[in-house]
Amino acid sequence: LSPTGFSEKLPGPAVLLNMRQVRDNAQAMFDRAQAAGVSFRPHFKTHQSVEVGACFLELGVEQITVSSWSMAQAFVAAGWRDLTVALPWQPGASEALSQLLGQCSQLGVVVDSEDAVQALLAEVQRWPARHRDGLRVWVKLDAGYGRAGVNWTNQACLESMFRSLHQAGLVAQGLLFHSGHSYDVTGQSAIAALHAECLSRVLPLREQLEAWCADGHCRLSMGDTPTCSLLNEWGPVDEIRPGNFVYYDLSQLEIGSCGVEQIAASVLCPVLSVDAAAGRMLLHGGAVHLSKDRMQDQHGVHFGQLAAKPFRGSWLLPHEGLRLNDLSQEHGKVLGSAELLKHFRCGDLAQVFPVHSCLACDLHRHYWTIEGRQLSRIG
Amino acid sequence: LSPTGFSEKLPGPAVLLNMRQVRDNAQAMFDRAQAAGVSFRPHFKTHQSVEVGACFLELGVEQITVSSWSMAQAFVAAGWRDLTVALPWQPGASEALSQLLGQCSQLGVVVDSEDAVQALLAEVQRWPARHRDGLRVWVKLDAGYGRAGVNWTNQACLESMFRSLHQAGLVAQGLLFHSGHSYDVTGQSAIAALHAECLSRVLPLREQLEAWCADGHCRLSMGDTPTCSLLNEWGPVDEIRPGNFVYYDLSQLEIGSCGVEQIAASVLCPVLSVDAAAGRMLLHGGAVHLSKDRMQDQHGVHFGQLAAKPFRGSWLLPHEGLRLNDLSQEHGKVLGSAELLKHFRCGDLAQVFPVHSCLACDLHRHYWTIEGRQLSRIG
Repeated sequence: LSPTGFSEKLPGPAVLLNMRQVRDNAQAMFDRAQAAGVSFRPHFKTHQSVEVGACFLELGVEQITVSSWSMAQAFVAAGWRDLTVALPWQPGASEALSQLLGQCSQLGVVVDSEDAVQALLAEVQRWPARHRDGLRVWVKLDAGYGRAGVNWTNQACLESMFRSLHQAGLVAQGLLFHSGHSYDVTGQSAIAALHAECLSRVLPLREQLEAWCADGHCRLSMGDTPTCSLLNEWGPVDEIRPGNFVYYDLSQLEIGSCGVEQIAASVLCPVLSVDAAAGRMLLHGGAVHLSKDRMQDQHGVHFGQLAAKPFRGSWLLPHEGLRLNDLSQEHGKVLGSAELLKHFRCGDLAQVFPVHSCLACDLHRHYWTIEGRQLSRIG
Repeated sequence: LSPTGFSEKLPGPAVLLNMRQVRDNAQAMFDRAQAAGVSFRPHFKTHQSVEVGACFLELGVEQITVSSWSMAQAFVAAGWRDLTVALPWQPGASEALSQLLGQCSQLGVVVDSEDAVQALLAEVQRWPARHRDGLRVWVKLDAGYGRAGVNWTNQACLESMFRSLHQAGLVAQGLLFHSGHSYDVTGQSAIAALHAECLSRVLPLREQLEAWCADGHCRLSMGDTPTCSLLNEWGPVDEIRPGNFVYYDLSQLEIGSCGVEQIAASVLCPVLSVDAAAGRMLLHGGAVHLSKDRMQDQHGVHFGQLAAKPFRGSWLLPHEGLRLNDLSQEHGKVLGSAELLKHFRCGDLAQVFPVHSCLACDLHRHYWTIEGRQLSRIG
């Protein structure tokens, strides 16, 4: 496929990556972690690609985070040996966990309730002894996001979980948390305030829990892309696990985590018809290609923005004046001015920038690079 | 896999189908079309499964609708030979179209602008002559939905498109429309009024366009599940193309298209943790398993409802008191009363009823039946 040959070859929507920017984004976050002296364990849920993952391996990164058991299995099959599954463990994943422990050098497992701890301890009894060596148990803490984990005010529950693990000989690594509420604020000072608030909740707990941790040190693992992108240091945390930064997207742009030129993933969508006079364009590009994640701005809700010109082989930038106004399963309805829409014709490829790159990329089996190379996604 | 063995075997979310209800839904719509004397060309975009499609074949249905070129290719590979691709054609799909014409007995193609007509006519010149025999061209009409198609008031454009096709020897079948705005109303009388309004726009056009149609008859093809489910006859239409009715979902329940027992698709999600006292439960079940399609009711926005008990091998019904309140990539946050949540424990399987079954099912590679049989999804 030649750089300009996409239009003739794509019967439907496809993800287009700017791989040079992907590498720059990976390098930049790697450098930030190095400078701050924290471990870097990038989350691979955003790209879910062995080839994109190789960009991190080239930097010397051998520790990764995944968000499901099937994702762990796929990356272990691709040769990765030090993973954290950042989704609370539950008994249905016992078989997957046992298999993975037989293959990994280190496998991080997260528990987020006393029930889960007890179920995990019951499982451990059934394993070969060598499986314990690679197991790294983290206790999930809710430091303010309100999604998963034990609430930071529930010290008794946390102590009980750490104690149970310790007594069974499964010494905990420490506390793992995710400040997903950073997605609700914008700008560096708001993110800094939110992170300071998290630390003010986490640090006193850390002191209380140290006695039951491996080497008497209660490790702290945190992970959201806004906090990791907008702050230069994160206080006494041991590890960062951001994922979205590899591609960034319109949501991150709004938060302030990235510049518009750092967005590295888009979806090429064939133009079906254009009614420039009416300010409308129809794309083959719907909820099954972009996801129904949405943003709100002063003009209302939208599902993505488009580049101001059709794609002709060179990476473009999103334009606020071309909005994906509505999505059904396969169709996308674009609103914009006649002035902008007059550049498009039936059969052109529109470069669409999704609201949330993780969800949009999860919907595709393959990626394309600008150079016309096809990369695979796992699963 | 035994009926009660799901909990031990599912490390992550999976679609669970009630195949008896799927067959009943298929039979009921088939009977409605028969009684009304219209052709039945079910849309396969909802299930995208060769095995589910076989339920229609057993009824004698040999004509189907699909919504993308890749879906057409997959169903042709599975033996279907009479398809309509209900997505406007664009030149990037030329290669796919040409291949499909070589394999199908009839292939319906939709055009929704004069530009598309001209591009299609240019393509036709390059084909072997026998490809024309199977080609069935439909002109897409916007009869009020405002998504795709030529607006019903733009008679000049419609006449020009039909005339261009006629002059080139590609005689049009007629007008194809989709009343997607039926999803914005509820109840039979509102749906009946909306359909009457559509017909009042379509029928005068039909008269004007007959001269340029195959056999001097301008066929009408329509398709939304609410109109097809709630009305017993549809006036002088030739064909219906509903899709969602095979599974229905919470959206259709709200519209009034189905009863709650007619919903035939759900997603089994492992329970990660329960905090009954706080009225919260965390599931492994996120946007990549359920889609971010949402509904609004008196309690606010939600992304699905749960059955009131854990799944133990028998099909359950959704309960309004257990709502999927928020979704991230892999996590789902459920809100409900302590009274309801006390039945769930870490490792149970929650039966989640998605807002929109088409989008939820598109996210999975396989289906499970209650009997523990795995069915494949195409693509």
